[in-house]
Amino acid sequence: MPAFETRQKIMFQHCDPAGIVFYPRYVEMFNAVVERWFEQGLELSFAELVMERGKGVPTAHLEVAFKAPSRLGEVLDLSLVVTKLGASSVTCAIEARCGDEMRIGGTVTLVHIDGARMKSEPWPGDLRTKIENYLI
Amino acid sequence: MPAFETRQKIMFQHCDPAGIVFYPRYVEMFNAVVERWFEQGLELSFAELVMERGKGVPTAHLEVAFKAPSRLGEVLDLSLVVTKLGASSVTCAIEARCGDEMRIGGTVTLVHIDGARMKSEPWPGDLRTKIENYLI
Amino acid sequence: MPAFETRQKIMFQHCDPAGIVFYPRYVEMFNAVVERWFEQGLELSFAELVMERGKGVPTAHLEVAFKAPSRLGEVLDLSLVVTKLGASSVTCAIEARCGDEMRIGGTVTLVHIDGARMKSEPWPGDLRTKIENYLI
Amino acid sequence: MPAFETRQKIMFQHCDPAGIVFYPRYVEMFNAVVERWFEQGLELSFAELVMERGKGVPTAHLEVAFKAPSRLGEVLDLSLVVTKLGASSVTCAIEARCGDEMRIGGTVTLVHIDGARMKSEPWPGDLRTKIENYLI
Repeated sequence: MPAFETRQKIMFQHCDPAGIVFYPRYVEMFNAVVERWFEQGLELSFAELVMERGKGVPTAHLEVAFKAPSRLGEVLDLSLVVTKLGASSVTCAIEARCGDEMRIGGTVTLVHIDGARMKSEPWPGDLRTKIENYLI
Repeated sequence: MPAFETRQKIMFQHCDPAGIVFYPRYVEMFNAVVERWFEQGLELSFAELVMERGKGVPTAHLEVAFKAPSRLGEVLDLSLVVTKLGASSVTCAIEARCGDEMRIGGTVTLVHIDGARMKSEPWPGDLRTKIENYLI
Repeated sequence: MPAFETRQKIMFQHCDPAGIVFYPRYVEMFNAVVERWFEQGLELSFAELVMERGKGVPTAHLEVAFKAPSRLGEVLDLSLVVTKLGASSVTCAIEARCGDEMRIGGTVTLVHIDGARMKSEPWPGDLRTKIENYLI
Repeated sequence: MPAFETRQKIMFQHCDPAGIVFYPRYVEMFNAVVERWFEQGLELSFAELVMERGKGVPTAHLEVAFKAPSRLGEVLDLSLVVTKLGASSVTCAIEARCGDEMRIGGTVTLVHIDGARMKSEPWPGDLRTKIENYLI
């Protein structure tokens, strides 16, 4: 099972006047899942990637289906798998569940770039090998 | 010309360590475009919709293509049109441009719900008529 | 030692174009420290307090000294103690350190209110007793 | 009358499950007031200050009193005056009112720094002269 898994508790800062997660906060959570995956799964922190190596992985495409609302105090189980790996891009499918209930599911496509030139750049070989471990 | 149009300046709070808009902030902007459209275009503010009428318009689906980065101090021209109108849902296409350059384009699908029951509910007739003005 | 302690990693979403934590995000972290303290230290989650009991603890006063910047990837050690406990209010001193370096220090004063009336209300006795455990 | 004045509408993204502005969002608004003051009042945008000149104005100290809650749809009138001008620092008093009611009042102390060295640096003479126009 190649998924990267992490958890996120729904806090006050995530919730809107309807008492449920405000959907842009979910997108922030998606980004946090990717960030933790880089650090814990790919062993390359964003701090090292962005600040030391001068690279970046901006999001090129995002798609999210919001299936059921999430409430203050709930804990989401988030999982990430790679569905497509290009020369300088990667598409990840991310799901959030609470217990047995699917809450949100979506995909994010990231592009590996050189930060100074803001141009796409092929994945370095060692990073690419690690990403392949999560490819389904 | 059926589009609802508004502007958003890129501020410090929107930008990430790469000096460009952090993409979850774009999603917050999308929500703000919808919120202004309701108030200015449909003449029904979120305050009235959510607080007084006890309804809501949670997002069921979101898709965004990020075409080019936006930087601190730039002004985005945002436009919204309706691409699909269902019994209790609406799909809006939103674009953000800076001058002639397309920066982001996407769709959001909202569902009209009763806030207490958290169940979808058909659009009231007068609101539906106003939404149709933006249908392409 | 009566302090409540928790940790927060500095993530991409916290950082500004200067590559350091954008200070309103620190204030969000302060709120998260209080929220975790209620749940883990006082055994009363915000979900129970706000949603089930219909109460709230809005912030009445905030003071923060930002002593040194924090960067992407760093881990902050946050501590909270109670410096003043009133009939329906509490003042907490919160500090954030990274290793030996003090990064921020401040105080937040919360007021216990009834959510429907938006009026202050004395702490319930059992909650007050638990808060006293953190009083210095 | 030396105050810099601006307005902010309370939007969905500012509000918490209690239906009022979540206080860290007020701090974000404070920062936006300072940012608009630099651009419109001091004629030096953050984009120019940070990106072109390589300087910054991080916040060294913040104090805010939250006097009354603000709700979705309300419009806040924000004003800023300078209460203290140091060699490389400035303290601004910021107030937010809704109609006649004071909602929040506070101070922020900013320090002018060189971004690369992260060290304080005296205000340039022309900028200092403009800041003095707002000194009370």
